[in-house]
Amino acid sequence: MSTVPAASSADEGPLALVCGGGTLPLAVAESISKRGRTVVLFGLRGAADSAVVERFPHHWVHIGQIGKFMRLARAAGCRDVVFIGSLVRPSLWHVHPDLKGLRMLGGVLAAFRGGDNHLLSGMGRLLEQDGFRLLGAHEVAPEILVPEGLLGRGKVSQSDRDDIAVGFDCLRAIGPFDVGQAVVVAGKHVLAVEAAEGTDHMLARVAQMRANGRVRASPGNGVLVKAAKSGQDRRFDLPSIGPRTVDGVVEAGLAGIAVVAGETIVAEPERVVEKADRANIFVTGVAGTKA
Amino acid sequence: MSTVPAASSADEGPLALVCGGGTLPLAVAESISKRGRTVVLFGLRGAADSAVVERFPHHWVHIGQIGKFMRLARAAGCRDVVFIGSLVRPSLWHVHPDLKGLRMLGGVLAAFRGGDNHLLSGMGRLLEQDGFRLLGAHEVAPEILVPEGLLGRGKVSQSDRDDIAVGFDCLRAIGPFDVGQAVVVAGKHVLAVEAAEGTDHMLARVAQMRANGRVRASPGNGVLVKAAKSGQDRRFDLPSIGPRTVDGVVEAGLAGIAVVAGETIVAEPERVVEKADRANIFVTGVAGTKA
Repeated sequence: MSTVPAASSADEGPLALVCGGGTLPLAVAESISKRGRTVVLFGLRGAADSAVVERFPHHWVHIGQIGKFMRLARAAGCRDVVFIGSLVRPSLWHVHPDLKGLRMLGGVLAAFRGGDNHLLSGMGRLLEQDGFRLLGAHEVAPEILVPEGLLGRGKVSQSDRDDIAVGFDCLRAIGPFDVGQAVVVAGKHVLAVEAAEGTDHMLARVAQMRANGRVRASPGNGVLVKAAKSGQDRRFDLPSIGPRTVDGVVEAGLAGIAVVAGETIVAEPERVVEKADRANIFVTGVAGTKA
Repeated sequence: MSTVPAASSADEGPLALVCGGGTLPLAVAESISKRGRTVVLFGLRGAADSAVVERFPHHWVHIGQIGKFMRLARAAGCRDVVFIGSLVRPSLWHVHPDLKGLRMLGGVLAAFRGGDNHLLSGMGRLLEQDGFRLLGAHEVAPEILVPEGLLGRGKVSQSDRDDIAVGFDCLRAIGPFDVGQAVVVAGKHVLAVEAAEGTDHMLARVAQMRANGRVRASPGNGVLVKAAKSGQDRRFDLPSIGPRTVDGVVEAGLAGIAVVAGETIVAEPERVVEKADRANIFVTGVAGTKA
């Protein structure tokens, strides 16, 4: 889907892929493998799917076991590290910090009180201090990004375009607050704003508001608009869509999905297109202001 | 609670109170009555509570029956009109427009595609063209407003103060989008943003996120922050809190409620204070930038 060359190559040795939940880790691991590079998966306990992790050479770690991770990654010859997959803010009781992890626990604790960005950036800095190179999943597997234009056969109407514009404006306004990455707009009216609940929950809310008459826009109107938070470290947490997002959009009775081209990950693109086409939902990548 | 003189008096004849749902219409009607002014309630069918409306001289109207309303209000000698209570965006099938209503239906239809503000402002203009004077509920019953400072015995900690500041900043940022009037902030992190779902639903979401571990802030942290939308016509739709808001805040495990003093209506203030004190929840009116 994209012709951008990957920022890493097989010559640079095996790559350590630290895996959270969802299906994205599989897509990224397969993409790296296809390029002929060895990938070693580090499944985060309580988050990663064992059916995904166990398809590849792998280890399991707790999120606080930074020391253990570094040791295993070095032993496997990995210098490049990629974080991928979803990560619900962990309970401190499940962090299981090792010595290295303890060293940064003060920072982690502070981060828990800020947004997720701070937590992940803190971990990233620690890895880089110890000689690792942290890459974004989109740099090693650019085909996971949504390209500019339509995926599938859906069409974008003028009223959809208006909703998309309002959506991106609204996301830009709330970006500084490290809030969520998505809104639902119908008839230029913002129906829902995502914060800590996540996109799937927000879409379920819109479906519910339609069912109980709180939203009167006729079915087939309204757009899910997603964008990265401003200041978000794109190596950790690009917005993503997948087949489940399409299901949620259908349930919510919306017309389609708009994301920033080149800054949004699509999990299982074939299934996304198939589902969207079947439900007559558009999925469009809109050119962003940044590359 | 406030010493601001009411902007209307018994000398100006009976007042027409157009009533939506909730308990605020009762509080406002009682306050006007206590001042010795006759109040005639116009219950909006499908919205107003008959137990409230029928305590006073009253009529029932559909929301589209502007002509009928004007006729009845004039016959009762009312020049001043106040809108109060909640109004879920009505289905067009339930509008039942009369001739006057039909004349403005084009404008109403356009308004349905914008935010609620537009709909109400349109109705307000029509009434004023026909010689009525539209007042805000806070102008005829100033004691329904939250004053500056604490209601009840709750205390505001420094971390609450930080959350309140983040909340008002965030509301200011999303104000131009005619989104909701409330956010929940804990540890300076925005957990939820209200849009079309309403405050009670947003608080229920925070409670759910706590229950399923998506929110890790310990109970007793976090603040519900409410403010009027920017550009909102304060004669129609001031933000409000009531006993149910306190219940929702308790369920969501928050520390308290912060609103803009003089720009927020409190329904049943005694019950709000009683419930808040029992649950050790603070309720505070923060001085706004406007009077």
